Amino acid sequence: MQVVFLGTAGTIPTRFRNLSAMVLKRNGRIFLFDAGEGTQIQFIKASLSMHKISDILISHMHGDHIGGIPGILQSLSLLKRTKAMRIFGPKGINEFIKAIIQTMNFELTFPVEVIEVNERIIIDEKEFYVECTHAEHKIEVLAYGFFEKPRPGRFNPEKAKKLGVPKYLWKKIQEGRKVKIKDKVIDPSEILGPERPGRKIVYAVDTRPCENVLSLANEVDLLIHDGMFANELKEKAIEGGHSTVVEAAELAKKAKVKRLVLTHISSRYPDTDLLRSEAQTIFPNTEIAYDLLTINLPVKES
Amino acid sequence: MQVVFLGTAGTIPTRFRNLSAMVLKRNGRIFLFDAGEGTQIQFIKASLSMHKISDILISHMHGDHIGGIPGILQSLSLLKRTKAMRIFGPKGINEFIKAIIQTMNFELTFPVEVIEVNERIIIDEKEFYVECTHAEHKIEVLAYGFFEKPRPGRFNPEKAKKLGVPKYLWKKIQEGRKVKIKDKVIDPSEILGPERPGRKIVYAVDTRPCENVLSLANEVDLLIHDGMFANELKEKAIEGGHSTVVEAAELAKKAKVKRLVLTHISSRYPDTDLLRSEAQTIFPNTEIAYDLLTINLPVKES
Repeated sequence: MQVVFLGTAGTIPTRFRNLSAMVLKRNGRIFLFDAGEGTQIQFIKASLSMHKISDILISHMHGDHIGGIPGILQSLSLLKRTKAMRIFGPKGINEFIKAIIQTMNFELTFPVEVIEVNERIIIDEKEFYVECTHAEHKIEVLAYGFFEKPRPGRFNPEKAKKLGVPKYLWKKIQEGRKVKIKDKVIDPSEILGPERPGRKIVYAVDTRPCENVLSLANEVDLLIHDGMFANELKEKAIEGGHSTVVEAAELAKKAKVKRLVLTHISSRYPDTDLLRSEAQTIFPNTEIAYDLLTINLPVKES
Repeated sequence: MQVVFLGTAGTIPTRFRNLSAMVLKRNGRIFLFDAGEGTQIQFIKASLSMHKISDILISHMHGDHIGGIPGILQSLSLLKRTKAMRIFGPKGINEFIKAIIQTMNFELTFPVEVIEVNERIIIDEKEFYVECTHAEHKIEVLAYGFFEKPRPGRFNPEKAKKLGVPKYLWKKIQEGRKVKIKDKVIDPSEILGPERPGRKIVYAVDTRPCENVLSLANEVDLLIHDGMFANELKEKAIEGGHSTVVEAAELAKKAKVKRLVLTHISSRYPDTDLLRSEAQTIFPNTEIAYDLLTINLPVKES
C-alpha cells in the first residue's frame, strides 16, 4: 500500500506546492482523496495512471479540493475510458458534477456514480472498508478512514502435516475456513499463526482538531492531518477552520497513531522547519508533506 | 508588449505542457487568452501577477480552455482583490461562471462581468481595440485580434521651433491635435513624422484554417494559431476541428503575417522538430510554442 501526496498547498498554490490531492494505491487500484486544480498534471509527474482511479473521495466543496475533477473526467474521456468510477463527497458534490458536465461540454465515455455521503461506512469490500465522519471546518467537511480488515495468520505447514491435512485443503485453511478430515473438524487457528492486522490510514484535512477525527484515527498506522499553521497563528487557524501543527500533533499523540503527516501547508512557509520542529516536540514521528512525497506502508505481520 | 505562453498542450496536458493559456501584457495590464486547468500555477512559475488581469478572453467552452477560471477567481478572492474583471467568451460562458460560483462555495471579493460575445469589436479603448470572429471547431469557437491603433508620428523639435510653436503646446501637437498660433493654424503633420503603426496580434486556437481568421490576421505582427498535428495526421485534424502545422503555415503566408507561433500541440510530439520543419518549409518565421515561451513585441517606429 502506498500513499502519494500530489498536492500539499494550503488553499493557494505555490511554485512548489499544488492544490490538495492524495493518492492511496493498493493492489494496483487508486483511491484519490481530493482533487485540487492541477491533479491530472501531478498524476503525470508522479508517473501514476489516472486509469487506475476507482474512487474519488472529496473532503469538502471548496474549489482547491475539487477544481481538478473536471480535468480528470475530461482527459479520461478523451482517452476512451469505459470503466465506471465513483465519486464520494458531502452534499453539493452531485450538483457540482452535474453543473460541470452541463457547462463544460463533456462527453463522458464512462459511468460516473456520484454519492453524497454522511457518517458511515461508505465502501465495504472483502479486504478493507472506508469509513467517513464529520470533521470541523467553515463548511461541511468529511474525514476518511481507510481500514484494511485483519488477515488470517501465517500458515504453518509443519502443523498442517502433523494434523494430516492434505495439501489441496491448505488454501481453504489459509483463507480462515474450517475443514473436515474424516470426522474431525480442524479449525484454522490450529494451523495458522496469530491474525495479522490490516493497515489503517486516516485522511483529515481542512479541519480543526476534533473528537470525531480523534476517534476515527485511534491507533492508525498513518494519520494525514491539516497542519496549515505554526503555533503562533492559532487565531488564524481557528478563524479559518484549520489546525496548527501543534494541535495536530497533540491529536496524533492522544489517538496513539504510529505516524503523522501534516499537509495543507500555508504558502507563508516556504521553509517548513518551524512547523516540523513544533510538531515533533509533541509527536516525534511527524513529517511535513511535500508534493510527490511517497510513503510505503508494508504489510503487517503482527 | 509581451506575450507569454502559460500552457501549450493540445487537449491533454503532458509533463512539459500545461493546458491552454496565454498572457498578453501591455502597460502592466494583463489580457488572458484562455485559462486551462493549472493557469494560476503557471502565473506563479512565469513570475506574473494575477492581480494584473483585467480581462479574460475565452475561445470556446471546452474544459481544457476554461478549467483554470475557478482557481483564478478563488485565489484572487482569498487575496482580497477588489478591482473588477471582465470575462469574454462564447455563449455558455455565463452559465459556466454562474454554476461554479454556486457549486464551489465561492465568496467573490470583486465584481466579475461576464460578456457573451459574437463577431465584433468587443473592447475599444484609446490606444487599442479587440475584435473577435468565429473560427471553425467542433463547437462554437472565437478567434481574437488585439490591435493597437496607430500612434502619431515622432515629434520634430526643429520643425516646431521653425514654425514658432511654444514649448507648452508641444504635447498637444504630439497628441495629434491642431494648435493655433496668433491666426495661423498648425497641423500636427507639419511637425510630426509619419504615423507609427500599432502592433497587431491574432489568437486562433482550436480551429481549422478558415477565411475569418485569414481575414482577421491580415498582415498582423504575430499570429498564434492551432498547430496540433503534423501533416500526416490531416484527417485527424479535420475530424477534431484542429489544424496541421502545414495548414497553419499556409494561412500565415496567405495572410502575410510577420511571425507565426503554433500552439495547442498534441501530446504525441514530445519532440517538435518535425512540426517546426514542416511549417518552416512554407512559412520560415514559424516557432512551436512551449510553456513559458515569452515573446517581446517592441513598439514600431514605422
